[in-house]
Amino acid sequence: MVTLAYDGTKFAGFQSQPNQRTVQSVLETAVNKMSTAASFVHIFGSGRTDAGVHALGQVIHFDLENDIPEKGIVNGLNSLLPLDIEILDAKKVASTFHARFTTHGKRYLYRVSLGRFVNPFKRFYTGHYKYSLDLELMKKALPDVIGTHDFSSFVASGSQTKSHVRTIYDATIKQDLENKEIIFEFYGNGFLYNQVRIMVAALLEIGNRKRPVHDFLRLYEVKDRNQCRATAPASGLYLKKVYYKENAANNITN
Amino acid sequence: MVTLAYDGTKFAGFQSQPNQRTVQSVLETAVNKMSTAASFVHIFGSGRTDAGVHALGQVIHFDLENDIPEKGIVNGLNSLLPLDIEILDAKKVASTFHARFTTHGKRYLYRVSLGRFVNPFKRFYTGHYKYSLDLELMKKALPDVIGTHDFSSFVASGSQTKSHVRTIYDATIKQDLENKEIIFEFYGNGFLYNQVRIMVAALLEIGNRKRPVHDFLRLYEVKDRNQCRATAPASGLYLKKVYYKENAANNITN
Repeated sequence: MVTLAYDGTKFAGFQSQPNQRTVQSVLETAVNKMSTAASFVHIFGSGRTDAGVHALGQVIHFDLENDIPEKGIVNGLNSLLPLDIEILDAKKVASTFHARFTTHGKRYLYRVSLGRFVNPFKRFYTGHYKYSLDLELMKKALPDVIGTHDFSSFVASGSQTKSHVRTIYDATIKQDLENKEIIFEFYGNGFLYNQVRIMVAALLEIGNRKRPVHDFLRLYEVKDRNQCRATAPASGLYLKKVYYKENAANNITN
Repeated sequence: MVTLAYDGTKFAGFQSQPNQRTVQSVLETAVNKMSTAASFVHIFGSGRTDAGVHALGQVIHFDLENDIPEKGIVNGLNSLLPLDIEILDAKKVASTFHARFTTHGKRYLYRVSLGRFVNPFKRFYTGHYKYSLDLELMKKALPDVIGTHDFSSFVASGSQTKSHVRTIYDATIKQDLENKEIIFEFYGNGFLYNQVRIMVAALLEIGNRKRPVHDFLRLYEVKDRNQCRATAPASGLYLKKVYYKENAANNITN
């Protein structure tokens, strides 16, 4: 179980694709340089992130034949990887652990920079909203986000998931006055394709009085993406943390 | 007089060069789209910045025949410029004003990120120092930096300036514990080519006990760049502010 951060700007997303620089392919190249096994070592992520989406705490796993200490994995991979990926931690885990199938939840962060023009240093690291925004309206809408809902109005076409019911445990908005930013955080048991970015766009529309405060309640009922067309840009989205059952992650066997 | 910020990462420095994307050439393209004059409008910067060096408050000037209000210059240029340059302010000034020749001082900031590995989000925006650092030693060295000195030991070859005597009015070090950074600021009447980056590298060597605390005093005497070989990377350097005589900048004639 390896925890890592990456700047998504120069990746065509997490998942391997032919002739594209992806997080997965770059990681697999590095991991296979460390491996003594004859066969190719595949890595498994907790889930995909789109092109331009960042990670502060993505989790992957892979099986290594050779017995490298945890610290050696961190140092070795960091010396093999390009500077837009940083390995933060490595832990040996039980063979029952799977980065994707044993997750218990995920936490995403979304940064929105305010002001008329885009700050040059934030163009790849925030979404940008230049219209007026009433933070109190968005705060009033947040309780509607929390709980178990059918998020069919908030899923991009291309999602292959059958059920669109997900549970959001917590949702917060913080204002960073010094940096002229608004920061959303969402913690839930799982998220649909583009769900966070569509929810952020809808919340900003509430803050801009384009939508009534409690429009989420209506959107859960109508189950219609056409009523929720905007998607906040990838650049503001960060996969902050992936949660696992403690026993899965801490049961060191190897 | 136009104040602007830019992310230097994707520029081959400030000054125009054939077949290179520079801040000056990108600005001149935008300014000439606004101009109604038959002849090409040149822009003049307060000074060059190298490839990868950033600006939080670079200053330029140019002469525009058409009478566009100050706010129109800001909005117009921002709509014409790419997202890695942002115009912050525009002021009509006396014809005696010159962005380069009437400067009274400059303030530079240098960000150093600490830790064993490079944070992916900081690779273009900080220098990185992975060795141990005693902040107190650097703080003791700072008073030696302030004042009027011959900085010949701190100038890169390629400098065409005859005198290497400059005055530093203020120099500070701040520790940003949350972001694991050290931030230097230098305010002086002018800086030689690469001077800030060479001074930062020498200060870090003092913090790492590779140099005695008061080595700057010796370096002023020996006037020898070979005793000061390291140059901190461009990515950590920001031109923060350019100072002018109040009457030059505020004497609006047009």
